[in-house]
Amino acid sequence: MSQLSQRSDVAAFLAMDIMRDANALSAAGEDIMRLEVGQPALAAPDEIRKAAAHALEADRLAYTDALGMPALKARIARHYQETYGHGPDAADVIVTPGSSGGFILSFTACFETGDKVGLAEPGYPAYRNILKALGVEAVGIPVGPETGWQLTVDLVQEAEKKHGPLAGIMVASPANPTGTMQSPETLGALIADCEAHERWFISDEIYHGITFNQRAVSAAGKGDHVIVVNSFSKYYCMTGWRLGWLAVPPRVTRTIERLAQNLFISAPSLSQIAAMAAFDAQPELDRRVAGYARNRNILLEGLPEVGITHIAPADGAFYLYADVSNLTDDAIGFCKRMLHEAKVAATPGLDFDPVRGHKFVRFSYAGAEADMAEAVRRLKAWL
Amino acid sequence: MSQLSQRSDVAAFLAMDIMRDANALSAAGEDIMRLEVGQPALAAPDEIRKAAAHALEADRLAYTDALGMPALKARIARHYQETYGHGPDAADVIVTPGSSGGFILSFTACFETGDKVGLAEPGYPAYRNILKALGVEAVGIPVGPETGWQLTVDLVQEAEKKHGPLAGIMVASPANPTGTMQSPETLGALIADCEAHERWFISDEIYHGITFNQRAVSAAGKGDHVIVVNSFSKYYCMTGWRLGWLAVPPRVTRTIERLAQNLFISAPSLSQIAAMAAFDAQPELDRRVAGYARNRNILLEGLPEVGITHIAPADGAFYLYADVSNLTDDAIGFCKRMLHEAKVAATPGLDFDPVRGHKFVRFSYAGAEADMAEAVRRLKAWL
Repeated sequence: MSQLSQRSDVAAFLAMDIMRDANALSAAGEDIMRLEVGQPALAAPDEIRKAAAHALEADRLAYTDALGMPALKARIARHYQETYGHGPDAADVIVTPGSSGGFILSFTACFETGDKVGLAEPGYPAYRNILKALGVEAVGIPVGPETGWQLTVDLVQEAEKKHGPLAGIMVASPANPTGTMQSPETLGALIADCEAHERWFISDEIYHGITFNQRAVSAAGKGDHVIVVNSFSKYYCMTGWRLGWLAVPPRVTRTIERLAQNLFISAPSLSQIAAMAAFDAQPELDRRVAGYARNRNILLEGLPEVGITHIAPADGAFYLYADVSNLTDDAIGFCKRMLHEAKVAATPGLDFDPVRGHKFVRFSYAGAEADMAEAVRRLKAWL
Repeated sequence: MSQLSQRSDVAAFLAMDIMRDANALSAAGEDIMRLEVGQPALAAPDEIRKAAAHALEADRLAYTDALGMPALKARIARHYQETYGHGPDAADVIVTPGSSGGFILSFTACFETGDKVGLAEPGYPAYRNILKALGVEAVGIPVGPETGWQLTVDLVQEAEKKHGPLAGIMVASPANPTGTMQSPETLGALIADCEAHERWFISDEIYHGITFNQRAVSAAGKGDHVIVVNSFSKYYCMTGWRLGWLAVPPRVTRTIERLAQNLFISAPSLSQIAAMAAFDAQPELDRRVAGYARNRNILLEGLPEVGITHIAPADGAFYLYADVSNLTDDAIGFCKRMLHEAKVAATPGLDFDPVRGHKFVRFSYAGAEADMAEAVRRLKAWL
């Protein structure tokens, strides 16, 4: 019988398994506190939905240019100038079907079968799984509190000594699952070190805009080897709209255009039109970030009271990543019991770190403020 | 400097280059007859747009299950029973971001780096280019009038003698660019031969519903090695909505679920909700197919009068593929002159056949009826 490929043997998201169980319990009438999901609880702001409603009546919603609607590309380029003071020309903004599409395009453009790519562990599991599906080897580089749970030049160079040359590295700031951020200095040093060693530098900036103590620094436009991945899913609250973008060096644009023509044809048209309005929704979106900040404070105060004391210093995104080794050595079992007994859903760390994740749990605080307080109350009663 | 990968060196779509030129001429005020584009001229029917408008107000539009909304999966499964009398269980329907997403998922699940996959030439260029991006080798199998421009068991077996074992073959019926269809007998023989030789059989059925002389036969459910790719883009007129589906054997479902979680997260939520209404739009959609049939007749009568006499016997889709070797040996130059001098856009064959395409042109008749007649009139004046 014809065989499934080896490379398709990627890990499932435990977060999605937990989400399925939580959905089933909710459907059965249980009142579950949802701290497992990596998406905003609120729908896209009115401006975005109104723009989509208008386009539904007025637009044919045909394929767009493979690189995206020119007006949206221009608007994103302007966003870089307004937000960071540097960034790509509109021509080098590539609109993608979610950041997922951006990862597929950039990994395919940059990495050959058999190449090795360095990434922080813990980290977003799809990096490693997409790379595997493409025949590229992910080299997990363990990070911890010593470096703020982020890669450094030393860690990358040590990994190369151990594993051989890396064709690129993947950096996320703020990161999933830790919420920690790169300092501008370390980010700059990593970009320079990658340039010197002919490595691609791929910067996942999908949690930009959701930061609490410092503004995130963008790698956009910082070198001919730098590719930035971003998304309308998180800050802009457009998860199900499946829209993201890349900011790439000009030498990469035409290659990615040809890949995008063949791999995706184009990103969803209605989402592209609606996203034009996303940049006008900033006041509402910033109010939501203020809400995440309140949620974060509730958890940062409440979790230690229930014995969850070792939490990564999250400065952004909407996650807390906690070392729960004082409570369990089996995060999967712990999360299942927490779901069924305390009615609180959270994600076991093994999604993000296959080696040490068995003693970590990720709490997402993208939900409602009342739910955070209630989750803490339930955990207190349970633990 | 860090290098772009070899596998990213895929061909551009000449159709999209022609489309860009045609767009530019149209924008400059020229009245261009658009016979180059592979998409319906009409927007999605009212039922679909109304369902989307309602969901915009009522739904959060969050991520869906990676395999798609259960209600849509069930509706697609019912469509198989109603249309063909056989097909997948709802559990084995996988909703994808366009058929593009379906190709990526099925190729990744089925083929290892270095595998060889047979496909008809001429054929849809993205097959070969997606395979190349995934490190898989496309083996182009020349087809022509002798076999109705379709693969046969003999052709596949000859290709294996020449190129070595094929891990799978890709069949499209109706096909792009020829519009020709597999007979039920040949389709069955190919499926059986692939089963006997442990090859995957991937059936592109995205033009099902757009047929003129016979109904298309589906490969869905015809074996543990059979994967069907379909789409809401063509018959359902939802190109920019980026929604398609796979019908897979049960042993493949979980593997593709894990890949889809990582590669795409989910297909666009609003498109999924709207697509539920697509099956109720069949009366309107069938009227549109009747329009394509009239367009086809206009071209089949008119093109021979201008000297374009060798046309593949198209029974479906909305394309005519013409051998224009009596007029030119340079289809690209011919199409450019036709665009600029006759103001008629069509696609040179090299997109579909790198070997013989230089003497072929594809005409798409998905546009307005009046445009078809006007295109013939202009070609008469030009040739």
